[in-house]
Amino acid sequence: MHVLVLGAAGMIGRKLTARLVADGHVGGRALDRLTLADVVAPERPAGTDGDVALVAADLAAPGEAGRLLAGRPDVVFHLAAVVSGEAEADVDKGYRVNLDGTRELLDAVRAAHEADGYRPRLVFTSSIAVYGAPLPDPIPEEFHATPLTSYGTQKAIGELLLADHTRRGWVDGIGVRLPTICIRPGRPNQAASGFFSSILREPLVGEEAVLPVPESVRHWHASPRSAVAFLVRAAALDGEQVGPRRTLSMPGLSATVGEQIEALRRVAGERAVRLIRHEPDPAVMRIVETWAPALEATRALALGFTAEASFDEIIRVHVEDELGGSLPA
Amino acid sequence: MHVLVLGAAGMIGRKLTARLVADGHVGGRALDRLTLADVVAPERPAGTDGDVALVAADLAAPGEAGRLLAGRPDVVFHLAAVVSGEAEADVDKGYRVNLDGTRELLDAVRAAHEADGYRPRLVFTSSIAVYGAPLPDPIPEEFHATPLTSYGTQKAIGELLLADHTRRGWVDGIGVRLPTICIRPGRPNQAASGFFSSILREPLVGEEAVLPVPESVRHWHASPRSAVAFLVRAAALDGEQVGPRRTLSMPGLSATVGEQIEALRRVAGERAVRLIRHEPDPAVMRIVETWAPALEATRALALGFTAEASFDEIIRVHVEDELGGSLPA
Repeated sequence: MHVLVLGAAGMIGRKLTARLVADGHVGGRALDRLTLADVVAPERPAGTDGDVALVAADLAAPGEAGRLLAGRPDVVFHLAAVVSGEAEADVDKGYRVNLDGTRELLDAVRAAHEADGYRPRLVFTSSIAVYGAPLPDPIPEEFHATPLTSYGTQKAIGELLLADHTRRGWVDGIGVRLPTICIRPGRPNQAASGFFSSILREPLVGEEAVLPVPESVRHWHASPRSAVAFLVRAAALDGEQVGPRRTLSMPGLSATVGEQIEALRRVAGERAVRLIRHEPDPAVMRIVETWAPALEATRALALGFTAEASFDEIIRVHVEDELGGSLPA
Repeated sequence: MHVLVLGAAGMIGRKLTARLVADGHVGGRALDRLTLADVVAPERPAGTDGDVALVAADLAAPGEAGRLLAGRPDVVFHLAAVVSGEAEADVDKGYRVNLDGTRELLDAVRAAHEADGYRPRLVFTSSIAVYGAPLPDPIPEEFHATPLTSYGTQKAIGELLLADHTRRGWVDGIGVRLPTICIRPGRPNQAASGFFSSILREPLVGEEAVLPVPESVRHWHASPRSAVAFLVRAAALDGEQVGPRRTLSMPGLSATVGEQIEALRRVAGERAVRLIRHEPDPAVMRIVETWAPALEATRALALGFTAEASFDEIIRVHVEDELGGSLPA
């Protein structure tokens, strides 16, 4: 099986690649070829001497998507995106990458389908940012997408295009609406949701972090490990079981910032908690209060998707995957 | 006030133009300039010797939208669209006109806004085709858009773009989700919903009509006169009252085909009803059974939108507006 990962140099892309290489298969079919693409060529993943192509490509540039599909990958993971904060700040870049890029990809798959019957499984990463306040708690499966950011708008449009192209028979698409990913490793990116990770990630290694919102803020989370598991599961799903509504809201953990901090206290002690500095930021608060506190992910749960059940577990995943299994002394 | 009508040569466009000319104002502001555009130049409306420009323009062609906005119309009615049946049959044309055309228009308004602060009221015609089965009855205001046609997909994307461009402050958009328009005058177009009109329109003038679905089929209707009233009302709405969810589901009349036929019997007698030939068409039925039986239009009703209360009334509107006020002897 040939797998193409678009956005392979990003955080989820790298973790997905590592998981695919470690598994050596997707849904039971042996992985014998991997194409990794991003705006800068991704690094070669560790632990494989197999057929791995590393490609620098701009998906929104005419013809690029078609070239990426020349090897007719069986599964395409489309993770390539400009994140929420950047898509809000640089509107043209956001529309270009998140909307035009997705449309170029879908149109290229369609062209390949019309040329030779090609019809890959395409896993599209959407986001809970498709929802905009006022929101019920939890958000039902059939709640409408009325995004309050350009990023959410672009993801909602991607879902619509994916469903229509799938209905037409040109592609076999599955959209996954990811929760906020926590704990995001590395340095903060431009996502307004960054503090949800940093208030745990930094104190776990003895560094200060800033909390810009009240502890009562409640949000919908899953670990990077769960996010990768969602994508892998989506790659192997039976499309018939999914039906025409091709995007699934992923399960997650609904927790308040206060509950996050309690978990940090249990795992890393009071000293870690004291590293969180409360600096209310009305601008961040205005964005965050429009976000989803919890989702009914009944469809995804019925299809076998699962997420963490506690923030202790989310922190443990981070310690295992990013800190070598134990906290610094 | 300067008003631009895009899609002015279509059925709703012509009726809207006639209403605007007859009123002589929009929301109390005098109409002193009218620009009518369509892919073929619209005809000059009767009853006006005022400033009327008639323009042939392809909205999706680069630069065309900008040229149409050169006169900085205060209100833009965007009715230009390829209908459902044609958008399904000619997928490229549908995406080009319904998606690219709308995006070109919104981007041209944005460019004008950035040049000189221009920010028109833009009334966008969406459709109940944004909904796809299985559907609750009635469909709540917050139900998700999961269209099962490319037309519905394109309209749902238009709604998302309209909301984001309005949120950005580039345009003052209002989307109106029109019910199926009944009785549509003239000859059938490529809409799969055509029979809802023809089973009344043809028998009213002594001609045969074909009914391809059972009489139990229930659907959501409004007259052409109501559709025009929706657009005029949307042009004058206070955007603050509408809020960030810029598209409103319009009120309508939920009726079965059987109820339509009963109304025809009351208005035009048994002889008219006998002109309806039952010819079940499984292909039409498969499309129609995915459509909306009724909507909760609570937001629009609260904002003063109203529709017909009975099919007798819908038929009377047709007799008044299309048949000179009385049935042929």
